[in-house]
Amino acid sequence: MTKLLSRTALLALTPALIAAAQPSEVPAEQIAELRTAALDDTLAYDITEGLTTEVGPRLGGTEAEARARAWSVKRLEALGFANVRVEEFQMPTWVRGEEKAHVIAPFPQELIVTAFGQSGSTGPDGLTAEVVGYDDYAAFLAAPTADIAGKIVFISHAMPANQDGSGYSAYGTPRFQGPRVASERGAAAIIVKSIGTDSDRMPHTGSISFGDATPIPAGALSVPDAEQLQRMLKRGRPVTLHLLMTPRQIGEQTSGNVIAEVPGRNSDAKKLLVSCHLDSWDNSPGVFDDGAGCGIVAAAAKRIMDAGRPYRTIEIVWFGAEEVGIHGGAAFAERHDGNDYHAVAESDFGADRVWQVTTNLGAERKAEADALRLALYPLSIVSGSYEQAGGADIGPLMREGAPGISLRQDGSRYFDLHHTPNDTLDKIDKQQLQQNVAAWVTMLAVMSGGIEK
Amino acid sequence: MTKLLSRTALLALTPALIAAAQPSEVPAEQIAELRTAALDDTLAYDITEGLTTEVGPRLGGTEAEARARAWSVKRLEALGFANVRVEEFQMPTWVRGEEKAHVIAPFPQELIVTAFGQSGSTGPDGLTAEVVGYDDYAAFLAAPTADIAGKIVFISHAMPANQDGSGYSAYGTPRFQGPRVASERGAAAIIVKSIGTDSDRMPHTGSISFGDATPIPAGALSVPDAEQLQRMLKRGRPVTLHLLMTPRQIGEQTSGNVIAEVPGRNSDAKKLLVSCHLDSWDNSPGVFDDGAGCGIVAAAAKRIMDAGRPYRTIEIVWFGAEEVGIHGGAAFAERHDGNDYHAVAESDFGADRVWQVTTNLGAERKAEADALRLALYPLSIVSGSYEQAGGADIGPLMREGAPGISLRQDGSRYFDLHHTPNDTLDKIDKQQLQQNVAAWVTMLAVMSGGIEK
Repeated sequence: MTKLLSRTALLALTPALIAAAQPSEVPAEQIAELRTAALDDTLAYDITEGLTTEVGPRLGGTEAEARARAWSVKRLEALGFANVRVEEFQMPTWVRGEEKAHVIAPFPQELIVTAFGQSGSTGPDGLTAEVVGYDDYAAFLAAPTADIAGKIVFISHAMPANQDGSGYSAYGTPRFQGPRVASERGAAAIIVKSIGTDSDRMPHTGSISFGDATPIPAGALSVPDAEQLQRMLKRGRPVTLHLLMTPRQIGEQTSGNVIAEVPGRNSDAKKLLVSCHLDSWDNSPGVFDDGAGCGIVAAAAKRIMDAGRPYRTIEIVWFGAEEVGIHGGAAFAERHDGNDYHAVAESDFGADRVWQVTTNLGAERKAEADALRLALYPLSIVSGSYEQAGGADIGPLMREGAPGISLRQDGSRYFDLHHTPNDTLDKIDKQQLQQNVAAWVTMLAVMSGGIEK
Repeated sequence: MTKLLSRTALLALTPALIAAAQPSEVPAEQIAELRTAALDDTLAYDITEGLTTEVGPRLGGTEAEARARAWSVKRLEALGFANVRVEEFQMPTWVRGEEKAHVIAPFPQELIVTAFGQSGSTGPDGLTAEVVGYDDYAAFLAAPTADIAGKIVFISHAMPANQDGSGYSAYGTPRFQGPRVASERGAAAIIVKSIGTDSDRMPHTGSISFGDATPIPAGALSVPDAEQLQRMLKRGRPVTLHLLMTPRQIGEQTSGNVIAEVPGRNSDAKKLLVSCHLDSWDNSPGVFDDGAGCGIVAAAAKRIMDAGRPYRTIEIVWFGAEEVGIHGGAAFAERHDGNDYHAVAESDFGADRVWQVTTNLGAERKAEADALRLALYPLSIVSGSYEQAGGADIGPLMREGAPGISLRQDGSRYFDLHHTPNDTLDKIDKQQLQQNVAAWVTMLAVMSGGIEK
């Protein structure tokens, strides 16, 4: 920072630099050129392919995530970004163990189960108990506690797919709240129908919180397995299940945020932050969640860098340990000030096309928000809220005052894959991925304060 | 047989019985009525749902398959079929153990693998070896044996989905031939890209034969895992894999064919045989393969029984132990004579609609073959070969001379599910299942020799 200021001071009298140090609008033709060229992007796919092939699964806090950081630093440096670095932090770390579910009676057979992050353990011998089943979370809440104590609670739901992903909130309660409440009500364990929209025998993991309650074994059945269990329960005879899940806490471990920059002409100007999360769940290479997001934001930033020097510095942040508790976002906000950002944005909803833009830049920046919408319109991106934007990892920065932009992706098939082993490279639709890069480079161009050759 | 002849002799003089003992054509109106009513069938689904929920997976030779036989006898008796029985046989039995694959270097991560039926074991400690990869079976055959000895052979392919399932033969060679040849060429183990058309992390199991070669560990990677391994190999660095597969042979065990009848008016007349297989692979409840087939043929036979008494006896056979070596079909042909059948048919290709009928009734029965085609046409079923029909379990009977009929199902998505955990009830399209029942009841009506009230 000192070095850049000195250099600026030395040359401060030249008229070109005076112009360069001022924000300007990017000409519509330049935006159109960047936007159109990005529709042929190959870098986002290459990054996604490389990370998810050469590292694969990379659970927050583990050695695999450390390999992912090393891979990322090397890749971002090779792309020519400046100031590539890791900001490490410590975090409590949970790792998966064995997991099996076996119906003992009346219809002996295996069911496919996976533990939620932070699940308790059954111990190595597992536990055997009767299953009490509920068709939805409300039915579970309404059930007498005497029915639940000592039992394995099973909660279902009927989550449909939708474009904006809102079903995750609407139908996710059995996972988000169920384990804590089941523990408080004395259940031996809880299994829920996967919070997912597919018909694959792929249980969807995800993080849970017990709050002050004692952790109990808590996991997801795949959608077909949950339906199988429901059919058994509807027959009216007691269903006894043997459940084995042996995850464990391995204490504080190191994670980190990987940061890279496209230096701006004015290092004192408020910055742009574009982000994704580098970690994944342990059961997949994490392509939709969120290798593709890292590919998209880096590819877009690279296109700005190659076009010239933006007025504002662009920070690329590949957050660590998002899945297991948004540790990276929290650590970043501790070290950085949300008020230093002109805008922050996060790509963490797969690789399908951006269909809507929302902003919360504030009423005084309505013209800028409109310019952004206008520039995105040729990509078939429609306008959403002027008062809402966000993302898991940028949430802490936004609570400090950072204005946000959301380039919202089509989530119609996101919850088919989310947190399952099926989140693999073959799911990428390259054309939709390219449209994402085009949307992000457009956003960066509009917000950049002008790009000088 | 003696008893039935005596009864016929006693009553031989009544005119009604003389009529009843002669085959006749079924009036077109009666066929149309049976065909149309079957499009609202619920029984095929009920049978499929019951078997696959209450028994679940039922590998040939195991206790689970015995439970399936007991379930079937009870269900077929409850439906009112005559002479419900089990014809037991003995068979060598293989059971799955643990299975894991872990890339040691250069890109450490788990791959999802499953053993083929009859696979050898790695032993409890597994084996570690370099992977030698081939893009297809021809490349494997062309490779020098020195490249293969002591290595883990990986063979890929590029199987597309198709309507008639012919891709299974065309692309299945890595599984059908690969393990034996890899053993003969000194490989430590073999893993192949699943013979499947999906993009799920669901390896497709299946039976293999080593012939006189020594069994080696042999299994399938899921399609995305195979593609992941291919990407690793294409990077040109040696890939080392740790493979653990511990299946074992548990000796001769009991299996059996479950048989039920719709008695015909003339017990001396050649019979009709409709069939499916009762067993499934151990990794799924076996809905498409082949619970639905059992539902279809039983539901169709029940509709004939409810309509009156056919001239010919209809035999329903739910074969045992098909997947693991067509043991049920072989045992049945040993005890029964293919020449006792007017026609034999088998439903074992899922639950999607019948799109084509083929026959090999012989040139002298062309009129009958045409009558069948005409009666199936309203179900959008087109005409195929007059000289080819078949099925795995009816194959031995046909080799003895039994004429065959094939009601060929749409296989476009069959190899998405085939031999994977994903072969579950939710995959059933009820309307297509009902069309199957309509096709089968139509076929039975045409071939029945007349149905008397």
